[in-house]
Amino acid sequence: MPKLVECVPNFSEGRRPEVIEAIADEVRKVAGVKLLDVKPDASHNRVVVTFVGEPQAVKQAAFNCCQKAAELIDMEKHHGEHPRIGATDVIPFIPVKDVTMEECVALANELAAEIADKLEIPVYLYEEAARIPTRRALPDIRRGQYEGLKEEIAKPERKPDYGPARMHPSAGATVVGARQFLIAYNINLDTDDVSIAKKIANCIREAKGGFKYVRAMGISVNVRGRDVAQVTINMVNYQGTPLFRVFETVKNEAARYGVNVIGSEIIGLTPLQALLDVAEYYLRLDGFERTQVFEETLS
Amino acid sequence: MPKLVECVPNFSEGRRPEVIEAIADEVRKVAGVKLLDVKPDASHNRVVVTFVGEPQAVKQAAFNCCQKAAELIDMEKHHGEHPRIGATDVIPFIPVKDVTMEECVALANELAAEIADKLEIPVYLYEEAARIPTRRALPDIRRGQYEGLKEEIAKPERKPDYGPARMHPSAGATVVGARQFLIAYNINLDTDDVSIAKKIANCIREAKGGFKYVRAMGISVNVRGRDVAQVTINMVNYQGTPLFRVFETVKNEAARYGVNVIGSEIIGLTPLQALLDVAEYYLRLDGFERTQVFEETLS
Repeated sequence: MPKLVECVPNFSEGRRPEVIEAIADEVRKVAGVKLLDVKPDASHNRVVVTFVGEPQAVKQAAFNCCQKAAELIDMEKHHGEHPRIGATDVIPFIPVKDVTMEECVALANELAAEIADKLEIPVYLYEEAARIPTRRALPDIRRGQYEGLKEEIAKPERKPDYGPARMHPSAGATVVGARQFLIAYNINLDTDDVSIAKKIANCIREAKGGFKYVRAMGISVNVRGRDVAQVTINMVNYQGTPLFRVFETVKNEAARYGVNVIGSEIIGLTPLQALLDVAEYYLRLDGFERTQVFEETLS
Repeated sequence: MPKLVECVPNFSEGRRPEVIEAIADEVRKVAGVKLLDVKPDASHNRVVVTFVGEPQAVKQAAFNCCQKAAELIDMEKHHGEHPRIGATDVIPFIPVKDVTMEECVALANELAAEIADKLEIPVYLYEEAARIPTRRALPDIRRGQYEGLKEEIAKPERKPDYGPARMHPSAGATVVGARQFLIAYNINLDTDDVSIAKKIANCIREAKGGFKYVRAMGISVNVRGRDVAQVTINMVNYQGTPLFRVFETVKNEAARYGVNVIGSEIIGLTPLQALLDVAEYYLRLDGFERTQVFEETLS
């Protein structure tokens, strides 16, 4: 079974289809990498590209895209609503299968060194790959955007982790890093009282003393014609804080208000492991191995 | 995503490695089929071969194996402890992914017709493919074994579903059919009192008024040096009777005796869907689709 890493780089071009296609083609050309999605946004003037494959192949595809973006995008002429610092704005690696976070951090370092050496683009490391606590969060690295960073990059506190302490004349700077797969998860309550959802969100979110890897809010949504209070959640590390623990906590806290959980929903994709962990927890499975999943014997 | 069918034919040869290899090679030769296991048993003088792939490719591999077995195995000279009626004793098709039971029954009929026409071997249809209720269970079809069936095959009640009403002179007869994936599932109780496990087994097994697709017994097992009572279960149709329902029922019935469930274990393989159903149930997932599993986007 091959190791799998996902990569979701963002490039500062969302309007010229030929540039977007040229970047996507760099992914298509690399053997062992599968292009999953290309999502341009014209008002942001930005494209999000998603691909997956074995670690070294994914790194190669990421480098090739970054090189192509440096050729075709001139940050001096770039305008868009989304904050950005370079032609390739950010490249996160995400462990998907049989890969540790440490391996993704190492991959980020290899790629950062290659971009700095071969393309002479300054590179910052973020999230799990960050070497400096203030560089964990992307907005902190992006402070002042391309234009502001150009002025400040020579200052010691903004010195890049790899490459020259000056912006590339057209491609700017790039952020490379590693992060967990983010699962968008919502839990619907049997009430239209949003204040209850807000209180429960505060029980589970890290910022209010809740789970470390949970971001949550209470909102009102319409489910099949009925207004219901929803706890809307970003699970930023499903291994550190598993789905079942959040679900059970929300269920218990809701009971405190005499409210039931109607149901929950996963928005978009989830790694298989997050759901296997749920089955393992509730069935109290003993000694279960992922290799016992029939379909896993086929890959 | 390709459709996947598993096939687990049993052949009446467990001693001559060259014959076993020749049969296994017939599977290896078919493109689109993956050989998963070859398990010979010398005392049974029988081999169980497991492979998986797209429906038509799996049928082709099954036919080729059956033809090879008819060439190399002479039932007139076969002796072994396991009941059998032919060189290829039984061929079950098992739906694994994106395939219905109806499709597997159709596949069984196609294969049965081909074996009858091209090899002149009489074929009986069993389990989900059975046309006659008394032919659902394999032991009923195998009554009298090769030697007995040879005498009785001309009788109306033993007329094969496909092919001549006489045994093939060396290959005998064959049984073809379709069945669900069987999950071997055990639940361990926090007691050494086997009588409680036996009572709970009786609550859940079909024969005693329990779930239709559950076979269960209460036994004593040693778990990490401690004797515990176990409900040992064959889940013969995990879609008809899901794992979570059996687990919850055992948990509730155990509570009736003041006993907790320590844990459960899946022995060997399980289709992924059986575990996804567990996660979906406990998280009360709304509108969940299997295509939301990240790894599924890769196949």
